[in-house]
Amino acid sequence: MGKEFEFEHQDGTALVEAGAIGDRRTFLQGAAATAAVGAAALALPGWTRGAVPADDMAAITAEIEKRHEESVKRLQTWIRQPSIAAENRGMAEGCELTMNMLREAGFTQVTKIPTDGQPGIFATLDAGAPRTVGLYFMYDVKQADPAEWSSPPFEARLVDKPGLGKVLIGRGAVNQKGPEATFLAALHAMRGAGRKMPVNFVFVAEGEEEIGSPHFPQVVRKPEIAEALKKCTSVYMPFAAQDLRGDVTVYLGAKGVVELELVSSGERWGRGPKKDLHSSNKARVDSPAWHLVEALASLVSPDGNDPVIEGFAAKVRPLSDADKKMIAEAARRLSEADAKKLMGVDRWVHDVSWQESLELLDSRPTVNIEGLVGGYTGPGGKTILPGRAVAKIDMRLVPDMTAMDSLAALKEHLAKKGFGDIEVNMSGGYDPTSTPLDSSIIQAAIAVYKKNGIDPVMFPRLAGSWPGYVFTGDPLRLPAGHFGMGHGNGAHAPDEYYLIESKNPKVAGIDLATRSHVEFLYEIAQTS
Amino acid sequence: MGKEFEFEHQDGTALVEAGAIGDRRTFLQGAAATAAVGAAALALPGWTRGAVPADDMAAITAEIEKRHEESVKRLQTWIRQPSIAAENRGMAEGCELTMNMLREAGFTQVTKIPTDGQPGIFATLDAGAPRTVGLYFMYDVKQADPAEWSSPPFEARLVDKPGLGKVLIGRGAVNQKGPEATFLAALHAMRGAGRKMPVNFVFVAEGEEEIGSPHFPQVVRKPEIAEALKKCTSVYMPFAAQDLRGDVTVYLGAKGVVELELVSSGERWGRGPKKDLHSSNKARVDSPAWHLVEALASLVSPDGNDPVIEGFAAKVRPLSDADKKMIAEAARRLSEADAKKLMGVDRWVHDVSWQESLELLDSRPTVNIEGLVGGYTGPGGKTILPGRAVAKIDMRLVPDMTAMDSLAALKEHLAKKGFGDIEVNMSGGYDPTSTPLDSSIIQAAIAVYKKNGIDPVMFPRLAGSWPGYVFTGDPLRLPAGHFGMGHGNGAHAPDEYYLIESKNPKVAGIDLATRSHVEFLYEIAQTS
Repeated sequence: MGKEFEFEHQDGTALVEAGAIGDRRTFLQGAAATAAVGAAALALPGWTRGAVPADDMAAITAEIEKRHEESVKRLQTWIRQPSIAAENRGMAEGCELTMNMLREAGFTQVTKIPTDGQPGIFATLDAGAPRTVGLYFMYDVKQADPAEWSSPPFEARLVDKPGLGKVLIGRGAVNQKGPEATFLAALHAMRGAGRKMPVNFVFVAEGEEEIGSPHFPQVVRKPEIAEALKKCTSVYMPFAAQDLRGDVTVYLGAKGVVELELVSSGERWGRGPKKDLHSSNKARVDSPAWHLVEALASLVSPDGNDPVIEGFAAKVRPLSDADKKMIAEAARRLSEADAKKLMGVDRWVHDVSWQESLELLDSRPTVNIEGLVGGYTGPGGKTILPGRAVAKIDMRLVPDMTAMDSLAALKEHLAKKGFGDIEVNMSGGYDPTSTPLDSSIIQAAIAVYKKNGIDPVMFPRLAGSWPGYVFTGDPLRLPAGHFGMGHGNGAHAPDEYYLIESKNPKVAGIDLATRSHVEFLYEIAQTS
Repeated sequence: MGKEFEFEHQDGTALVEAGAIGDRRTFLQGAAATAAVGAAALALPGWTRGAVPADDMAAITAEIEKRHEESVKRLQTWIRQPSIAAENRGMAEGCELTMNMLREAGFTQVTKIPTDGQPGIFATLDAGAPRTVGLYFMYDVKQADPAEWSSPPFEARLVDKPGLGKVLIGRGAVNQKGPEATFLAALHAMRGAGRKMPVNFVFVAEGEEEIGSPHFPQVVRKPEIAEALKKCTSVYMPFAAQDLRGDVTVYLGAKGVVELELVSSGERWGRGPKKDLHSSNKARVDSPAWHLVEALASLVSPDGNDPVIEGFAAKVRPLSDADKKMIAEAARRLSEADAKKLMGVDRWVHDVSWQESLELLDSRPTVNIEGLVGGYTGPGGKTILPGRAVAKIDMRLVPDMTAMDSLAALKEHLAKKGFGDIEVNMSGGYDPTSTPLDSSIIQAAIAVYKKNGIDPVMFPRLAGSWPGYVFTGDPLRLPAGHFGMGHGNGAHAPDEYYLIESKNPKVAGIDLATRSHVEFLYEIAQTS
């Protein structure tokens, strides 16, 4: 759960593969004048107008270029250490390696934080700066089946990707070791150039992001860590925000999510068989599979689109006029035809318009079937009456819904409708997260993107989810978001990659992405 | 499909494993007096009252004993040649081997009958007898995964099974090569003893029983075969009818069946995604999985028990008074507690009584979910909105429903309810089959069982299915059923076995089972 959502933009661009790009309307018209990113990868137009003293930036830029190989090697070392929470594979080693990388990057205090699951990491870097910025990292990655990859997922091979440039292929390349290593490269470059950090850092990391961050609250709620985070003006996670064209979307938050299994079984129900039975018995024996189907049908409107779970949507805050204006602008700038093509979709629910589809996406809670598994699932048929059937569900939540309220509403609904025996096994999830447009972190991000010729498309929130609620919710109430130029794709999929050397001047390779973090830190030091 | 049902008796005894036998009420009280099967396996009480001249039977019995090893070897040879239609494995060889076995057993004309699928077999044996009996064989077997077997499925190993005796383990051991080889042993014994066959034979076999007999009509409808079958007084399939206690149930027919997949896809629907999409899009994109759930829910009553497909049950013929009387008697003789225990069931639908449960079983058409497969089916969750979801369905049919009518009713229902886009892919099935209680084949079977101390439990029909309709339906309208003493278990499961040497005098090993076929043929020659 979680970070994959960042990579699936609401216009569907995460599905774009190089070579499969349609003629999507270029929507950077407004930014065209300033978009003259030069042929020299690091020659940024309008730099002198920026927040970084010109000579500082020149020195740091030189240092970034000088350390290019070192930065790539750091990312390769990281990827070559698999750290897969779902398989409990390489987690101790992955945690140690991350801690060492933090120390090398200048963090003076680096502590492993035990939890009931995989350990978190707490680190600080006190630069004596007036402002302190929070950082959120994950050191785990998604599973990978080597058979599906064109180069081994933990080899971190550098490969030329036609039309794109040199990319690093590996599990975690873009989600999230690539962008995180890019951020560390920025710290090395600033130190290497003899520059003081423009901000202090309070760093928290978890090793369970890919399994729904079940123990991350145990890290951030630890008194000394909570105390340290309180000093921050905002929290950010390094990110590779650019799509294949170099365009960026900025989200002022994200939906919450609950992921769960509904399990109907004869064992729990007290009706139907406790194990699979010959199907001829259906005439006299209840079916846990039908029971599940009926329970599912009770959750949504007859077209399967609108949740009808009592109380589920009670706390939904409607889109504000500002939200609607933002979405209207996004609808104008993004191409509906391209989004539909990329998503493999001909129609929106209720045949709404493009703008309405984006409003629904940002404003509506959902109950989705991720998977159905019951009885015989192989080729052909098998004449059984299954003793057990499972629906894998995710529910997306908007402010001011909470994960716990939503789960409780679902359970109460099932009990009321005669499905109280159906197990509701929540595997992960968390509340929605929101950060105001006028917060320092969002303003700094927009400023740096614009300086780099990118006019970001803005959305009130991502329809996907990330555990930003631990920062934006009580008690911290800090602005939290993502930042970073750069590009990658294939999170959770085979051949995940991160762009190292770009052939397209509008899309940042690792060095330009590194420099965007430097700019962001200087910017946030000023705008906080 | 098909033959597995014979092995799952309606009282659940197919689930009995040696050692797991409870204290089920012995219901053979009425037969107890005649049930004194002696210590010598082939010493049948009351034989002289029977249909076979006593000296004939003595000679044939001696011949059966003499040929014991030969009979076992024949079965082993047959099992060692896998013939799996579902995998198109060894089918040509399996067909040839079966044909050779028929020739060796005395059939004078043996012909391979090509079909659009695997070939059938047509054979005749003209003994110059007044009466002709039809025989139905299958030469294919179910798939087998050797990893799940305690001895290799195609090795046909002889193993001592505690409490039971010496069994032969192998795929097809009981379903159906064991009983079929036992029948062939009866022919060899009669010939070996120099006795004339009491009846002529018209033999038909198929190689696709395990995949739903899709081309068997092409065999029996062939003019010269249909013409030959017309001369038969009845058709029977060799069977191992005894459960672990030696008890037998006789069914006067079987339900019909339709097996199919319901496939909901964005591709066909024109709504929802054509392939899996990130689940955050549920807020604006229709879901083929929800569409399937709603379609399924429309097929049955809210408790999942009663089909509500318009016209589906229009031709259901209610149980007759005679049927109800027969079921009431069966309910008295069979133990509800044991059936529930063996089936892993605590309650019947609608909390009906034992007798009512048996009436439902015999009289009600059903719509059953065999399996649900949609989207992500692995461990944990995956945040996708699946482009496709499938329900595997079987529908059981009672007279006078037909497979084609039922399929048409389902399709019409779906179209009417707004689910016309959902694919209905029928993979196999056929009409119900019925044979009158007073038919020669049923009366002969009852007579032979009774002579052997078995008072069979009678049912109007099996709730499972077999393709007897090709004989009992138009145009032949012949009585058709199963006969055979003997015991086996594990059809379609690992460690399928057939009993060779029995330790329980009430349960027939292969020799006594062979003799039961001899008795049956003599009996049917007289009662036809």
